[in-house]
Amino acid sequence: MDINSDLGESYGAWRMGDDAAMLSIVTSANVACGFHAGDPAGILQTLRSAAGHGVAVGAHVAYPDLVGFGRRNMDPTSSELVADVIYQIGALQGLARAAGTRVAYVKPHGALYNTIAHDERQGDDVVSALLAIDPSLTLLALAGSPLVERARARGLTVVAEAFADRAYNDDGTLVSRRLAGSVLHDAGQVAERMLQWVQTGEITAISGRRIRLQADSICVHGDSPGAVEMARRLRQRLDGAGVPLEAFAGR
Amino acid sequence: MDINSDLGESYGAWRMGDDAAMLSIVTSANVACGFHAGDPAGILQTLRSAAGHGVAVGAHVAYPDLVGFGRRNMDPTSSELVADVIYQIGALQGLARAAGTRVAYVKPHGALYNTIAHDERQGDDVVSALLAIDPSLTLLALAGSPLVERARARGLTVVAEAFADRAYNDDGTLVSRRLAGSVLHDAGQVAERMLQWVQTGEITAISGRRIRLQADSICVHGDSPGAVEMARRLRQRLDGAGVPLEAFAGR
Amino acid sequence: MDINSDLGESYGAWRMGDDAAMLSIVTSANVACGFHAGDPAGILQTLRSAAGHGVAVGAHVAYPDLVGFGRRNMDPTSSELVADVIYQIGALQGLARAAGTRVAYVKPHGALYNTIAHDERQGDDVVSALLAIDPSLTLLALAGSPLVERARARGLTVVAEAFADRAYNDDGTLVSRRLAGSVLHDAGQVAERMLQWVQTGEITAISGRRIRLQADSICVHGDSPGAVEMARRLRQRLDGAGVPLEAFAGR
Amino acid sequence: MDINSDLGESYGAWRMGDDAAMLSIVTSANVACGFHAGDPAGILQTLRSAAGHGVAVGAHVAYPDLVGFGRRNMDPTSSELVADVIYQIGALQGLARAAGTRVAYVKPHGALYNTIAHDERQGDDVVSALLAIDPSLTLLALAGSPLVERARARGLTVVAEAFADRAYNDDGTLVSRRLAGSVLHDAGQVAERMLQWVQTGEITAISGRRIRLQADSICVHGDSPGAVEMARRLRQRLDGAGVPLEAFAGR
Repeated sequence: MDINSDLGESYGAWRMGDDAAMLSIVTSANVACGFHAGDPAGILQTLRSAAGHGVAVGAHVAYPDLVGFGRRNMDPTSSELVADVIYQIGALQGLARAAGTRVAYVKPHGALYNTIAHDERQGDDVVSALLAIDPSLTLLALAGSPLVERARARGLTVVAEAFADRAYNDDGTLVSRRLAGSVLHDAGQVAERMLQWVQTGEITAISGRRIRLQADSICVHGDSPGAVEMARRLRQRLDGAGVPLEAFAGR
Repeated sequence: MDINSDLGESYGAWRMGDDAAMLSIVTSANVACGFHAGDPAGILQTLRSAAGHGVAVGAHVAYPDLVGFGRRNMDPTSSELVADVIYQIGALQGLARAAGTRVAYVKPHGALYNTIAHDERQGDDVVSALLAIDPSLTLLALAGSPLVERARARGLTVVAEAFADRAYNDDGTLVSRRLAGSVLHDAGQVAERMLQWVQTGEITAISGRRIRLQADSICVHGDSPGAVEMARRLRQRLDGAGVPLEAFAGR
Repeated sequence: MDINSDLGESYGAWRMGDDAAMLSIVTSANVACGFHAGDPAGILQTLRSAAGHGVAVGAHVAYPDLVGFGRRNMDPTSSELVADVIYQIGALQGLARAAGTRVAYVKPHGALYNTIAHDERQGDDVVSALLAIDPSLTLLALAGSPLVERARARGLTVVAEAFADRAYNDDGTLVSRRLAGSVLHDAGQVAERMLQWVQTGEITAISGRRIRLQADSICVHGDSPGAVEMARRLRQRLDGAGVPLEAFAGR
Repeated sequence: MDINSDLGESYGAWRMGDDAAMLSIVTSANVACGFHAGDPAGILQTLRSAAGHGVAVGAHVAYPDLVGFGRRNMDPTSSELVADVIYQIGALQGLARAAGTRVAYVKPHGALYNTIAHDERQGDDVVSALLAIDPSLTLLALAGSPLVERARARGLTVVAEAFADRAYNDDGTLVSRRLAGSVLHDAGQVAERMLQWVQTGEITAISGRRIRLQADSICVHGDSPGAVEMARRLRQRLDGAGVPLEAFAGR
């Protein structure tokens, strides 16, 4: 099993998250590429730290929307989206090389992540971008989303991820953030829930039913002290239970 | 001998230059990387066209100043400048890979180009960036500038360039654009002048004295119909005189 | 009757359109505010020229998307959209004051224009922005769109516009650009068509039926030499027929 | 006497400073205008809060350098700098109107502030911008800098400011941040020092000599919990000593 988190999201004078703390917890780091967050100097520092901790690096590609932090839907043309994704992966590859590491996988961010889970055109564009720059890149995608199979059909390695702090519907989709109970806040409960899922492949949906959820990575957050603590508790619980943790994509 | 020009400088809906025309004239294309000009989709298109024409590709790295077109002096810290240059080279490498070509050299743009010709700190930062991402990259620099030797001393291959349409002082420096006669406008005269220089290694300075100018590439412009025509005349004159033209850095 | 056009859309080193030519043709100038196009120095120059020609000034507000020229759909929150619109109007008001003129109206641009023609939430946000900064501002909107009545119901003065070079459906909506015949290219025909409409209030839809179209301004383009020529022909035809042309909103 | 601080410096998802806390301490708020920090929605929120607290609003204008937080020197042309400053003031005026307040003064930020203290060309440009948009705007400038007199000579009202946490040279200039002892860290000492200065007009320079310092506002920081606490202590000390505090420029 793997634990991933979004890192490198500071920008110039603005700080976000505690990259140093998170790099001692996760096995994979989704590093911002400058379109929703991350300036080159800050990204390079995060990559050096990731290299030092032996954490695998993924390109956290996004729509070009700094002020909206990549969380707003956009409708780029295919030629724009393909090129934007290649540009960001390339930039991160360059910085990773300078930091003594490499980009092993790609995880789309925010609105792009949510859109391509179901939007075939934009999803195909992202897949085309990965194939064009490096077909050996792994795509990290939402567990149960149609994108997983579509990307595999075109030859990409795809790893699905579960969200540690999110509730699930019976069909394996995430409960919308607009509904009560969609986000879990108790660190101990989250750790226990993820351990059970890792050991059984089943998770308790918001309805109370137990469902199967196929994924090889767990996404945790690190953008607040509480989030870092939740991630740490999860890591400790999995370690304590002897669950082997390693990056799904080699460094 | 090599002929280079700045390309890929359109941005979104805004056009600049005639990349298609210039790619049939030059042997090396300095392609914008998004900091002073160039959006990813437009850059990718230019790179595909360069690949089709067999033209070598260089990363035209710049200060982050889109509205100023990279022509305004800035004083980034070393960690900012090093990372900014790596980021841009990496982004262009990614797009070049997708276009079936590669980045063979780096030419700093505008204010950065002029600054590092003499500013040792910023010059060293640019050199450090190239060494960090790929020490085999060639640096294209101003003929006669101190940067040429400083970069070579650190192990980089450096190619110096002459400017087809600029007058020179007796010491081999460019006549300031603020002085009368600094820019040459007659296409026939420019072609003849460059041919003589290529054949003899000497060029007539603005004073009338003949001086030696050591360079392996000629920089031409393509941002107006007149500039394209001047470049075409130069190419025809050199071709007609049997001067072999090829990129200094392999494709 | 009024003729309006989009101006001030250059950006830094990139030129777009022929503002000088258009300012001798139109009675109202939709001036870019920096979010989709227009840098402050260029905007100021256009405003000075508009003041000199006695042309009324409107704020051409847009989504924050320079690389996409404001033509891509986005889903800002209401607090983002309201503040973005106020910010742009305020910036243009400041520059207009320095240029000796004032912002008399607001015309949303590109994707924002198309979206608010039917999207009630975003349309209400734009109306709220105008009411918050200056309730005396006129809103220039698509003839026949629901926005016209919604904005009037909240107290705004709204002027509807017709498009000189676009075909209309029987219900007064624009024929989609994806359909054949949606855009008219013959300058003489466009001028004649507009004159008939001005004189009768009726226009020939793409079906051949004559329909009523209620509008008080005609939108023309100026982003190519052909477009400028079409606008000039229209102006000459209306002038020749004695149609009085003046800005719908005072200078 | 007046106390001013930089506010509205968050940007999109990134937080900076504690505006709510600072607005209960200061009498004047230098509000970011979007070029070095501040997105429209965040600025509007800060302005509403400033209006609620009865705090005067100044436009904190800057070079266009978001990633560098306006702290890097640039060399814009005069037409660029004049228009950039007008644009920012206008944008803030628009948002201030929507928030029920107004822009009473202008304080240049960061590298622009430091540059115009001595650079006559850029200083004159900033003065020209204020005169062009609203000659009744007060300029807040570095005490003892040549800018103070130059701006007054052109008719502007200028208020000089002292820095609560900075050491001074014998000639009234700030001790460079690169020198030991340039920044004061003891909140109690800073409060006492400022009170003495307010009561006597004299301050102890880093040499130990007492010097006269002419200023009508004190600049405090709010970008860390320690900074907020220092500002609060200063306010309490001045209040306790019966020093009347009010904005130098009316709301």
